Amino acid sequence: MRTYQLESPGSVEGIVARERERPAPGPTEVLVRVRAASLNRRDAMILEGSYPLPASPGVVPLSDGAGEVVAVGERVSRYRVGDRVLGAYWPRWQAGRLTPELFDQLGNTLDGMLTEYALLDEQWAVRVPEQLSWAEAATLPCAGVTAWTALTHGRPLRPGQTVLTLGSGGVSLFALQLAKAMGCRVLVTTSDPAKAGRLKALGADEVIDYTAVPEWSTAVRELTGGAGADLVVETVGARTLEQSMRSVALDGEVVLIGAGSGERYLKIEQATYARTMATLRRVFVGSRQDTEDLVRAVAGHGIHPVIDRGFDFTEARAAYEHYLGGRAFGKVVVELP
Amino acid sequence: MRTYQLESPGSVEGIVARERERPAPGPTEVLVRVRAASLNRRDAMILEGSYPLPASPGVVPLSDGAGEVVAVGERVSRYRVGDRVLGAYWPRWQAGRLTPELFDQLGNTLDGMLTEYALLDEQWAVRVPEQLSWAEAATLPCAGVTAWTALTHGRPLRPGQTVLTLGSGGVSLFALQLAKAMGCRVLVTTSDPAKAGRLKALGADEVIDYTAVPEWSTAVRELTGGAGADLVVETVGARTLEQSMRSVALDGEVVLIGAGSGERYLKIEQATYARTMATLRRVFVGSRQDTEDLVRAVAGHGIHPVIDRGFDFTEARAAYEHYLGGRAFGKVVVELP
Amino acid sequence: MRTYQLESPGSVEGIVARERERPAPGPTEVLVRVRAASLNRRDAMILEGSYPLPASPGVVPLSDGAGEVVAVGERVSRYRVGDRVLGAYWPRWQAGRLTPELFDQLGNTLDGMLTEYALLDEQWAVRVPEQLSWAEAATLPCAGVTAWTALTHGRPLRPGQTVLTLGSGGVSLFALQLAKAMGCRVLVTTSDPAKAGRLKALGADEVIDYTAVPEWSTAVRELTGGAGADLVVETVGARTLEQSMRSVALDGEVVLIGAGSGERYLKIEQATYARTMATLRRVFVGSRQDTEDLVRAVAGHGIHPVIDRGFDFTEARAAYEHYLGGRAFGKVVVELP
Amino acid sequence: MRTYQLESPGSVEGIVARERERPAPGPTEVLVRVRAASLNRRDAMILEGSYPLPASPGVVPLSDGAGEVVAVGERVSRYRVGDRVLGAYWPRWQAGRLTPELFDQLGNTLDGMLTEYALLDEQWAVRVPEQLSWAEAATLPCAGVTAWTALTHGRPLRPGQTVLTLGSGGVSLFALQLAKAMGCRVLVTTSDPAKAGRLKALGADEVIDYTAVPEWSTAVRELTGGAGADLVVETVGARTLEQSMRSVALDGEVVLIGAGSGERYLKIEQATYARTMATLRRVFVGSRQDTEDLVRAVAGHGIHPVIDRGFDFTEARAAYEHYLGGRAFGKVVVELP
Repeated sequence: MRTYQLESPGSVEGIVARERERPAPGPTEVLVRVRAASLNRRDAMILEGSYPLPASPGVVPLSDGAGEVVAVGERVSRYRVGDRVLGAYWPRWQAGRLTPELFDQLGNTLDGMLTEYALLDEQWAVRVPEQLSWAEAATLPCAGVTAWTALTHGRPLRPGQTVLTLGSGGVSLFALQLAKAMGCRVLVTTSDPAKAGRLKALGADEVIDYTAVPEWSTAVRELTGGAGADLVVETVGARTLEQSMRSVALDGEVVLIGAGSGERYLKIEQATYARTMATLRRVFVGSRQDTEDLVRAVAGHGIHPVIDRGFDFTEARAAYEHYLGGRAFGKVVVELP
Repeated sequence: MRTYQLESPGSVEGIVARERERPAPGPTEVLVRVRAASLNRRDAMILEGSYPLPASPGVVPLSDGAGEVVAVGERVSRYRVGDRVLGAYWPRWQAGRLTPELFDQLGNTLDGMLTEYALLDEQWAVRVPEQLSWAEAATLPCAGVTAWTALTHGRPLRPGQTVLTLGSGGVSLFALQLAKAMGCRVLVTTSDPAKAGRLKALGADEVIDYTAVPEWSTAVRELTGGAGADLVVETVGARTLEQSMRSVALDGEVVLIGAGSGERYLKIEQATYARTMATLRRVFVGSRQDTEDLVRAVAGHGIHPVIDRGFDFTEARAAYEHYLGGRAFGKVVVELP
Repeated sequence: MRTYQLESPGSVEGIVARERERPAPGPTEVLVRVRAASLNRRDAMILEGSYPLPASPGVVPLSDGAGEVVAVGERVSRYRVGDRVLGAYWPRWQAGRLTPELFDQLGNTLDGMLTEYALLDEQWAVRVPEQLSWAEAATLPCAGVTAWTALTHGRPLRPGQTVLTLGSGGVSLFALQLAKAMGCRVLVTTSDPAKAGRLKALGADEVIDYTAVPEWSTAVRELTGGAGADLVVETVGARTLEQSMRSVALDGEVVLIGAGSGERYLKIEQATYARTMATLRRVFVGSRQDTEDLVRAVAGHGIHPVIDRGFDFTEARAAYEHYLGGRAFGKVVVELP
Repeated sequence: MRTYQLESPGSVEGIVARERERPAPGPTEVLVRVRAASLNRRDAMILEGSYPLPASPGVVPLSDGAGEVVAVGERVSRYRVGDRVLGAYWPRWQAGRLTPELFDQLGNTLDGMLTEYALLDEQWAVRVPEQLSWAEAATLPCAGVTAWTALTHGRPLRPGQTVLTLGSGGVSLFALQLAKAMGCRVLVTTSDPAKAGRLKALGADEVIDYTAVPEWSTAVRELTGGAGADLVVETVGARTLEQSMRSVALDGEVVLIGAGSGERYLKIEQATYARTMATLRRVFVGSRQDTEDLVRAVAGHGIHPVIDRGFDFTEARAAYEHYLGGRAFGKVVVELP
C-alpha cells in the first residue's frame, strides 16, 4: 500500500510517499481503507515543528480521515467489515476529563490518516452515517469537534443568544453552522468582502468587515444593542484577543482555540476585562464521545461541512501548499479512490 | 375599567365581569393596558378549585397577558410609557432557585391579566419585542416558559438529540417548536391523525398515532434505532408515564409537567425503570430570567406561537368553555382592543 | 490457584471453590494477586438470579476487590509490578455517559475478584494509595462509587446543605462519610437505637429512629426548620419512597439507588410530589473516572470505610451468609493472605 | 444619628463623620441598627477613586455591615423588628446572571454601612443566624461571598481536589476555610514565615514561602505530584498570574479576583497556557442567593471568619489606615455599640 510519512519537518518536502506492507489487524484492531483525509492548522504546525506535542519520526501525517472497515481483529465487537468510520483525534480519550496519560494523537505521536490503509484500535474509531460523504466525514475530527466543544462545553448556549466567529477557517465555519443549528444568532468577521455572501449563505446573520472597521468590537456592540456577544469563538489569538474581549457580553465567554500565532504573550487590557468579566475557556478538540455527539448533530441536522477543495492522494503535497496559502474557505481534503 | 373576577370557583359562571376604578401606579409600579391574555390548564384547575396553591377570593384570573405601559410610578426605571410588556408567572421569582417565600402567582394569589388594565410592579414585567403580536406575547408566560425550562434546565440538550412530546397542548407545541430551534429531532404523539399534518408543519420529524399504537413506546424505540428519546416532555401524567418511561433513553430525562390528572399516584414499573435509569425532573414554569430568555429565543428565532382561536374580551367565559372542551390545537387567547 | 465460581444460582451452595491454572496476562493486561474483596447487594441479587444483567455461567463472583500487580503484559503502560490496584465496577466505562455497549461488570458478565489471582485489562484497574488498607480499598468500587455519584452527579452540593441517608448499609455509610467531607449536615434514619451512637461517631448530625417515628419525614422537616433535606440518598426503594419524597426540600433531589426490593411498582403520591417538585435521579455506580475521584477523596480526606467484619478466603460462603443476614454495619470483606 | 460620608476621594481625610436625622423606613424598607462593618479592597479603591463603578458624592462608605432590624415598613414581610441581618453587596441582584441594570452597590452608588442606622429595602437584606457574632457577620458580604463564588460557580470542586490560595487577605482566608469545609486540600503561599503557623491553624495543608521560592509554581507542582492545583484563587493579578498559570492543573481553573493592581495588562505566556489549557474565570462577588448560601455554609459548618482587629466606630479613619497598611491577617472591622 502507499502511505505518506513525515520524514523531515520544515517544509512539504518532508512529507514523502512510501510503499509499506498492508498491515493485518491485531485482536482489537480494525483495518480501514481510507477514502478521504483533511488538513488542519495543527498539521501545518507539526510540519513546521512548532506543535507543543512532538511528532514521532516518520509518522503518517493527518489526524483527520474517514474510510471503510476492510478487516477486523478476532476480538473486535464494535465494527464489522463494511462499516464506515473516522478516526478520533485523541484516540485514547473516550470521555470525561483529558489527562496526561491520554496524550496521543493520530498523525502526530501515532500514525495518522494520510495513507491508503490505516490500522485503528476499535476504540479509536467513530461510526459515520450514510448522510455524510467521505470527504465531509474526513473534515470532522479536528476542526468539527473543536467547534463543537467550543459551543457545548461551557455554559449552555440557548437559542436566541449571540455567537461571534472570526473569519473563514475550518473551525470558524463549523462554529457558524453549528451555532445556527442551536438557534443562535451568529456574527462573523471577515477581511474579504467577497466572502460575506458565502458566509451569509451559510447562515451568518451579520458579517463585519474588519478591514473597514479595525475596531470591530464597536460593530459587535452596535449589532447587539450594546450587550455584546454571549460567546466569542476566538480562533486567531494574540492579534485579535483585545477586540474579542471588547466584543463579549458581561459574564460571557471567550473560547480560545489554537496554539497561538507566534506571539509570546496573550495580553488582556485590565480595563477592558473589568467591563466584561468574561470567562476565558480553552478547547483541546474533544473526546471520542464529543466526536460521536458531533457526528450525530451534523448528520441529524443535515449540516454539510464546507469543503474548499479536494486533492487526489498523489497530490498530498499540493494539498499542504494550498492549505498553507491561507486562502481556503472551508476544509482542504485529500481524496482516495 | 372592566375586569373579570373569580367570585365562586366551580364553573365558568364563577367568572364575573365587574367595573372597577382604574388604579394609579404606586412608586415602583407600572399600569398596563392589557391587549391579550391566554388560558392555561392551571387556570382550569384554579376555576375548579383543584390547584395546589389556593386562589385569593375575587382575584382577577389568568397569569398570562401582555399589553402596553400607560403610566409609571415615580421610581420606575425599567419601563417607560409606550413599552410593550408581559407579566411574569411567578412575579417575585427573579432568577435562581424557587423558594417558598416567592410563592405568589398572577391570576391566583395576585390579580391577573383578564382585565383592561393591570397593575404590575416594574420587577414583575418582561419586555416584549415588536416581532411578537399581542396575542403571541400573551401565550408565553406559562406554557412557553414551561416548555423552555423543560428543555433547558436539565442536562443540556444538543443538536441531533431526540425529544418526545405528547399531543397538541400549549406546552407540547412550544416544546416542539423550541426543540426544533435547538437543532433536535422531535417525535410527537397524537390520537388524531388529522393533527399529524399540522404537527409536521410545525417541524415534527415523526408523528406517532397512539390510538393505532397504544404501546407507543415501541414506536419511539423503532424510530430511534432502539436508543429511545433523550428527553421526554411528559405533559399528561399518570396515564402516560409508563409509556414515557419505556420511551426514554438510558440515562435520559423525563420532564414531568403539571399537577396530575386526577389519579392519586404516579406509578413506575421497577423493571422498566431498571432498564432506562432515567432522571425524572419536575418543572414549575420558570423565573423572570427564564421568561426573558424565552422571549429572546422566540423573537430571535422567528418562532410564532400557535394560536388556536381568539375571543373578544366580552366573551371570556366562552374562551374558558372552548379551552375546557380540550380540542384546541395551540393557545386560546382573549383579545382586547 | 484457588478461585470461586458461581456454578448454580439460588443459594450460597452455588458458590464453589475450584482450582484453576494461574493465567498469564495478555499484551494489555495485568495479573493481580487479590488481597481483599467485598460483598454488595448486587452480589446477593446475582446469587439469587434477580439481577437485571444476567451473570455468565461459572463466573468468578464479586465486583469489588483490590490487590497487588504481580505480572504485566508487554504493552502495559499504566502499571508496574508491585502497584496496588482495584478493579472498576464497569470496567469498560472510562468516563462520560454510560452506553449499552459498555454493559459488562466484574463478577457478573466478566470474572470478578473472589479469586487468588485476577486478570484485568490495564484500563480496568484503578490505582490505590498507601493510606488505604487492602480491606478498605476493596470496599470502594460498588458501594463507595455509588455513594460518590449519588452526591456528586446531580446539582452540586454545597457546604451547609442537608443530606438524608437511610440506615446503615454500605452505600448509606459511605454517603454519610462523604457528605460530611463535603461540609454538609447529615441526617440518618435507623431502626436500631444501638446504632445511633455509631452513626454519630461517623459524623451524623442527627439520627432519627424510624421505628419510634414511622412518619419520619415529619422529623426531617422539624430538624430542618420545615425546609426538608436538600438531597435524599434513597437506598431502600418502594417501601420508603413516600417518606423520602415528604422529606426532601422544594426543588431538591431524591437519588434512587438499587434495583428495588421486590415490589413491582414505585409509587409517588401526586399531592406529595406537588409540594416538593423534587428531581428523582438514578445512580448506576459510576465510571472509572468516578472511581479515581472517589479514591482521591477517600485517601485525601482520611476517610476510613466502615468494615463490619472480615472473613478468610476459605470462608467465602460464610461471608455471603453473614451479608445476607442483613445486620452488618458497614462492609463485609473477604481477605486473602 | 452619626454617619460617615465619603466627601472627597483621595485620602482618609475624605471620610467625614456627620450627623444625619435617623430615617424612617419606606413601605418595603427595614431600618437596621448597624453593629459592625468591615473593610475590603474595593473600599480602598473607592477611596482613591480607582474603582470602575464611580461612587455617588457623599455616599456612606462600606458595603459590608450587619445589625439589628429596629423598624419595618408597612409592607415588609421578610423581616421583623429584632431580626439580625446583613446587607447584600449587589442589593438588586437576587440570583442568576448579573445584568447591567442591576449595577448598584452599597457603599458606592448606594449608601453603605458605616453608619449607626442603615435603611435597606427588605430585598437587600440577608438573615444572619445566632452562631455568628456581629463582627463575623459583617465580614461576609464582599470577601466571604467572593471566596464562595470563586469556589462554587465553576466546575464543581470535589473532596480530595487541591486548591491554591495566595497570601493572607480577606478573600484568601475565606477561600482557605471554605475549601477545607468542602473537603479539599489547600496550598497557600505567603511571604511571611511568621504567618505560616496561623495559616496551618486555619487548615492549610501546605504553606509555600514565595520569598524563598520565587518560582513557587515549582513547589505547587512538587506538592501535587506534578499534577498542579485543580483551582487557583488568584487574588493578586498581573504580578502573580504567570506563576498561577504554571501552578494550575491540566484543564483546571484560575479564578481571577479583583480589579488589578495598577498594571495596564494581564499577560499570559502562550507556552505556559498551552501546557495547562486552564479556564480563567472572573468573579464579581455574588448575588443575594449566593450570600444566603454562604451564610448557611459558614453557620452550618461552624466556620469563624478571621478578624484581624476591631476598631470603634469613632475610629473609622484609623481602621482605613490600618487596612491600607496591608499587614492585616484577616478582616478589619468597625464595631458599634
